[in-house]
Amino acid sequence: MKVGLIGLGKMGLNLAKNMRDNGVDVVAFDVFQQARENAESSGIQTASDLTQLIAQLEPNRIIWVMVPAGKPTNDTIVQLRDQLSPEDIVIDGGNSFYQNSLTHDQMLKERKIHFFDVGTSGGMEGALHNGNFMIGGEKEIFGKIEPLFKAIAAKDGYLYTGKAGSGHYLKMVHNGIEYGMMQAIGEGFEVLAKSQFEYDNEAVAKVWNNGSVVRSWLMELAESAFSSDPKLDEIKGVMHSSGEGAWTVEEAIKLHVPTPVISSSLMMRYRSEEDDTVTGKVVAALRNGFGGHAVDHKD
Amino acid sequence: MKVGLIGLGKMGLNLAKNMRDNGVDVVAFDVFQQARENAESSGIQTASDLTQLIAQLEPNRIIWVMVPAGKPTNDTIVQLRDQLSPEDIVIDGGNSFYQNSLTHDQMLKERKIHFFDVGTSGGMEGALHNGNFMIGGEKEIFGKIEPLFKAIAAKDGYLYTGKAGSGHYLKMVHNGIEYGMMQAIGEGFEVLAKSQFEYDNEAVAKVWNNGSVVRSWLMELAESAFSSDPKLDEIKGVMHSSGEGAWTVEEAIKLHVPTPVISSSLMMRYRSEEDDTVTGKVVAALRNGFGGHAVDHKD
Repeated sequence: MKVGLIGLGKMGLNLAKNMRDNGVDVVAFDVFQQARENAESSGIQTASDLTQLIAQLEPNRIIWVMVPAGKPTNDTIVQLRDQLSPEDIVIDGGNSFYQNSLTHDQMLKERKIHFFDVGTSGGMEGALHNGNFMIGGEKEIFGKIEPLFKAIAAKDGYLYTGKAGSGHYLKMVHNGIEYGMMQAIGEGFEVLAKSQFEYDNEAVAKVWNNGSVVRSWLMELAESAFSSDPKLDEIKGVMHSSGEGAWTVEEAIKLHVPTPVISSSLMMRYRSEEDDTVTGKVVAALRNGFGGHAVDHKD
Repeated sequence: MKVGLIGLGKMGLNLAKNMRDNGVDVVAFDVFQQARENAESSGIQTASDLTQLIAQLEPNRIIWVMVPAGKPTNDTIVQLRDQLSPEDIVIDGGNSFYQNSLTHDQMLKERKIHFFDVGTSGGMEGALHNGNFMIGGEKEIFGKIEPLFKAIAAKDGYLYTGKAGSGHYLKMVHNGIEYGMMQAIGEGFEVLAKSQFEYDNEAVAKVWNNGSVVRSWLMELAESAFSSDPKLDEIKGVMHSSGEGAWTVEEAIKLHVPTPVISSSLMMRYRSEEDDTVTGKVVAALRNGFGGHAVDHKD
């Protein structure tokens, strides 16, 4: 089986290695020469442009797109639409918004190109070994790409999820759950840190990972983070986000699904990006206005 | 090593079996005759009352209390205070509020009896095999009971957490985290259920358990629940709670720790216990009052 891979960032490069290590013949392309050279030095065969990549694959091609969601993915898929042949297969393994994937599916279908939207989980480590994949697209065509997933996924680590859009939708919700779980873990450790007791965070995460109800991969990542920086003094508590949590909340709003935990996790991420807030100023001013309560002044 | 165990409910009985299976000589007591007979029929030696239980142990006794938190635990510990000897050790393995454990510690200390507050996690299965224990109490005495935990805990599944109170406090926060994680998982599946796609819940939980970021014991429990009841049609979405989540939130309030996720999980549990709400009636009436918006009337 031969696959063309577009995108050699941290996820794409690991995925290329995963494919190569598991008997998939992979040829890769990235717009950045540095990324291509990196890949070549890891023994990954690269093509110098998209046209050359396509030329190196026989018809009924399988092309895996692993570039940032949004414009880079859109642009890549438009180029593929214009250069690929009927019956070729395009896989978008990035974190695309599922509505965009529905658009891409339509766009490619017009040229009789098959599209699969694949949510990829497991982080960089998962991309390299034993990945996790949620796969939406045409059921009749799925068999043609299933051997690829069998090769690169964890045991039972891939799922055909239904029609186009369902793979990225499921990955979106997966990430929404992840936001809530992470915020819950964070809040717990903050209560511990401010408590009257002296806990060793690494030891706590470790004991919780060995038989407790909250044992999880996220708690293992916490254990590992605390092991190198016991109180995480080296990093700031700024929690960036890249879309999936927000999309989950937007979807919940559209569907009238009460999701206070996923929503608050998202809002706490936004709060963490601000040093001070307009909300805080307004509430402080109002308390001062009606009750004469003290306000903190800027230095 | 010989241990007296008080309480043969679902956790206590499994713990007794765990001790017996791992070389701990256990004699147990429960106020309910039926529970004692149950235990006897599983080969657990029982005593017919507390005095007899104590008589069957040599001084420097170790007594594990595994009865419901609150009055049953308080009453048991008062009885033990009155009947035990100096240097005996009382372990409270239940879900006691840590402030009560501090009181129990003081109460027993006056009679020179040692107290350990032990948070027990891992559910019924953990009590039976490979339990998880968070242990607060006197550091110098911990060595005397450590072999017991080595015998019944998962590998690396016990931790001495510091002075009295710290074990139950840590278990409380563990449960707060658990509330948040569970609510996040629940919300995710509700978005999926109301989405435009058709997901197989069991298959989703299964793929998420094999390499994804949200893989966890809770997701394994979800997989198992969906496997026997694919849409959980057989149960109602009423989420009871037994204190630890509420205590975590009270503690967060006392310490001024922002915990929106753990707090909302708790509030959603309370909401789930109501068929209709006063909040809802008030908001519907107000919307009707200012905007003439329709209200739903009782049948």
